[in-house]
Amino acid sequence: MGSLHTDVLENNSVGALNPLDPEEFRKQGHMVIDFLADYYRDIEKYPVRSQVEPGYLRKCLPDSAPYNPEPMDSIMQDIQTHIVPGITHWMSPNYFAYFPSSGSTAGFLGEMLSTGFNVVGFNWMSSPAATELETIVVDWLGKMLKLPNQFLFSGNGGGVLQGTTCEAILCTLTAARDRALNRIGREYIGKLVVYGSDQTHCALQKAAQIAGINPANFRAVATSSATAFGLSADSLRSAILSDLDAGLIPLFVCATIGTTSSTAVDYIGPICQVAKDYNMWVHVDAAYAGSACICPEFRHFIDGVEDADSFSLNAHKWFFTTLDCCCLWVKDPSALVKALSTNPEYLKNKATESKQVVDYKDWQIALSRRFRAMKLWLVLRTYGVANLRNFLRSHVKMAKQFEGLVGLDKRFEIVVPRTFAMVCFRLRPEVAGGEEKANEMNKKMLEAVNSSGRLYMTHAVVGGVYMIRFAVGGSLTEERHVNLAWQAVQEYADAILGTGADIDVFC
Amino acid sequence: MGSLHTDVLENNSVGALNPLDPEEFRKQGHMVIDFLADYYRDIEKYPVRSQVEPGYLRKCLPDSAPYNPEPMDSIMQDIQTHIVPGITHWMSPNYFAYFPSSGSTAGFLGEMLSTGFNVVGFNWMSSPAATELETIVVDWLGKMLKLPNQFLFSGNGGGVLQGTTCEAILCTLTAARDRALNRIGREYIGKLVVYGSDQTHCALQKAAQIAGINPANFRAVATSSATAFGLSADSLRSAILSDLDAGLIPLFVCATIGTTSSTAVDYIGPICQVAKDYNMWVHVDAAYAGSACICPEFRHFIDGVEDADSFSLNAHKWFFTTLDCCCLWVKDPSALVKALSTNPEYLKNKATESKQVVDYKDWQIALSRRFRAMKLWLVLRTYGVANLRNFLRSHVKMAKQFEGLVGLDKRFEIVVPRTFAMVCFRLRPEVAGGEEKANEMNKKMLEAVNSSGRLYMTHAVVGGVYMIRFAVGGSLTEERHVNLAWQAVQEYADAILGTGADIDVFC
Repeated sequence: MGSLHTDVLENNSVGALNPLDPEEFRKQGHMVIDFLADYYRDIEKYPVRSQVEPGYLRKCLPDSAPYNPEPMDSIMQDIQTHIVPGITHWMSPNYFAYFPSSGSTAGFLGEMLSTGFNVVGFNWMSSPAATELETIVVDWLGKMLKLPNQFLFSGNGGGVLQGTTCEAILCTLTAARDRALNRIGREYIGKLVVYGSDQTHCALQKAAQIAGINPANFRAVATSSATAFGLSADSLRSAILSDLDAGLIPLFVCATIGTTSSTAVDYIGPICQVAKDYNMWVHVDAAYAGSACICPEFRHFIDGVEDADSFSLNAHKWFFTTLDCCCLWVKDPSALVKALSTNPEYLKNKATESKQVVDYKDWQIALSRRFRAMKLWLVLRTYGVANLRNFLRSHVKMAKQFEGLVGLDKRFEIVVPRTFAMVCFRLRPEVAGGEEKANEMNKKMLEAVNSSGRLYMTHAVVGGVYMIRFAVGGSLTEERHVNLAWQAVQEYADAILGTGADIDVFC
Repeated sequence: MGSLHTDVLENNSVGALNPLDPEEFRKQGHMVIDFLADYYRDIEKYPVRSQVEPGYLRKCLPDSAPYNPEPMDSIMQDIQTHIVPGITHWMSPNYFAYFPSSGSTAGFLGEMLSTGFNVVGFNWMSSPAATELETIVVDWLGKMLKLPNQFLFSGNGGGVLQGTTCEAILCTLTAARDRALNRIGREYIGKLVVYGSDQTHCALQKAAQIAGINPANFRAVATSSATAFGLSADSLRSAILSDLDAGLIPLFVCATIGTTSSTAVDYIGPICQVAKDYNMWVHVDAAYAGSACICPEFRHFIDGVEDADSFSLNAHKWFFTTLDCCCLWVKDPSALVKALSTNPEYLKNKATESKQVVDYKDWQIALSRRFRAMKLWLVLRTYGVANLRNFLRSHVKMAKQFEGLVGLDKRFEIVVPRTFAMVCFRLRPEVAGGEEKANEMNKKMLEAVNSSGRLYMTHAVVGGVYMIRFAVGGSLTEERHVNLAWQAVQEYADAILGTGADIDVFC
């Protein structure tokens, strides 16, 4: 490392360096594959949550880019020495935080291939295979989910692969907004109202902000344990009526299948019935739990989707596809295209003019787009529907196993019923000395567990209750990791409650 | 292939399949590296622009996902047979279309590593190395560009890696919009005006649409050959004054360094002077030509950037970093954060509360984000400043070489002066029989060249003139490819003009 200011141009051998020499690519590519294979093999050695302090890396790296080239060997050494300690190991089998991002070999290989081809697939013309494979895999996945035909290309709807749910919601909200404003007049933008629940992902509020919805017109309708923190159609209607009374215009509602805090489900059917009465757009955000709906026993959670306008899930969340890959289906692609299309001269081409092709640039925020279909295609083919269901069921089974273990220890309780592969639990208030102390104690216990590096979980607060989320979804996670995780939780509970050994809970 | 409905669950050996088995990963990873190394080695065999017809792929693939797993060997065979013919080979040395996306071995390896770690780096806590390396590499690159300190973290500004310029512009426009509306009142959203030139990338108009700017309040200020199609400060001021007269509120202006059609430059200094008078946000879109500004001889093209609010370039365009990687620097990160931040309970953590860390989720549209810094870091270190300048200069040199060849053939002319590594040329109207016929003939010639598969170029129209863009930027492109490209162009010109052999120009 370091930044030697000797001009490399004077070195003739370097002048011949080609940044994409095939044999150099081959050699270094094999080296990085071995590095990553070893990383996965050894991943349990590392503390799951990174233990570094803010600012650690600036102390290790130079202030400016090197003037001369550096060999790959020393860069790889720096990755091991300086980067790996700053990684929180999302691929670890002991990772149970947020929602895991379930990578897989097939997903990785697909990403390699799309990176290798490096096509910028803004329209059909720019690389037909990228667009066509995308239309095919979103139809495949749509059929696996038993989405109504109206969401498939054969039913005049269609799907698109975007980066994240945030983008998918922003696109659908923009489409809904312009559909409404084109009818009622642009001057009404300040009157439009967007609805979710107090459990809806912050992506909705952010999308509304970006799309120019007045922040005062964003409704996080209250939920409660009575509906297992799902959005009730009655509460939604009340909120809408109150807004109508105030002269506002209901525009958009987002129903979630598997909320971030507790995997709660907003039942789509009743919400769509309300939305229909007010001509609103319904988006179904199934970022997490949508994947499970390829299993017949979970499909009922998206019953009613036939009445929604759009539906999305994150294949990078619980579908073995590396980050990023959000699948969005819409019934009316023309609404997206009207809101998001641009047609500059430099992109005009015969295929577009023939109207026989999809130009995905008009279905998303950005013009440039990666060939994301490749990885989803590889995941679907490498594992097949049967194994994908297998994997998901094994995660649900492991979550049930953890739930069972929690149930056997009377100091703990399950806070909200488990629906998919996440368990929300805590030390009981009776053990902690009241509700307030329970929140504090659970927070302290969680921090102690995470600081140990043995596993990583995160928290949420629903209905005023601080709870620990144990989300199973890592591709390397096996039953033994779940058992070890529970053992660690019990040890820290012992320490916190003063009933066990002297584990340092203040580390 | 095919979709056999035999339940694989009954096969015990498959039950043990792990989607991230390290040894399976190693084996298949090596196979894909070899596939890609061979692809680069043999890439000149393929027609550059894909020759397939719309709908070709659906005919080759099954209607639904396979139920049982399929072996990687047969998937790779399908990629070779069905996908490669549908690829337009952006990595080909004979690719001179749009702006090339200059991949490199280092960029690819960086993408592999970030895909392998698969961290979801929404905030510092979720993987400290991802955030910290990003703050470091954007500072490195900012220094290479001699951006004023106000754009670096040390100067209380900072940079962020986003996917595309479309996203970068949308974020800065949203920040500018909210800064203004928070001052004057939300109800004025319909009065805000956004300015670019008639050469500005469509990303600006699209961002304005998404951000809820009234489409009637988007100004594409006319340019002409008198300013080499750059936005003149006088024209901008006239447009602003006229809008002020109409009771509108100037908000945002985008200056481009290297427009898509002709690599025109909007001089930043004078534009900022005008913008300052009306308290407007100035964004500098240097998506293409920003990279060149690491060379001292090109740096003057961004003189005046010290008075702008934000600056972006696409490292995936002309900086050897695979798609996607847009570098955005802002002077006032808090403007982004105010417009784009969300703070749900489930993401709260001690590091964020300490205010000692950057949480990049608040600097961009999406919450989830890939570890893009890895690839930019590898590019900077593997090649070093000296070689990166070398590469860029070699592209400029090859473009000059092509320009020279065009100049030697009296049937052709350069349409706009070459500034960077793109040459805009055409068959002269005198040869074609007038302006209108020249446009037709050049279009026909371009289609014939592209249909041959020997090279790929695209077109633009500026000032009513249809011109062919020859953009050098492929990492594998050498002088011999440029010579062969010119030879092909001349052959098709001969055929079109009836002065040469019987090449089929109607293929």
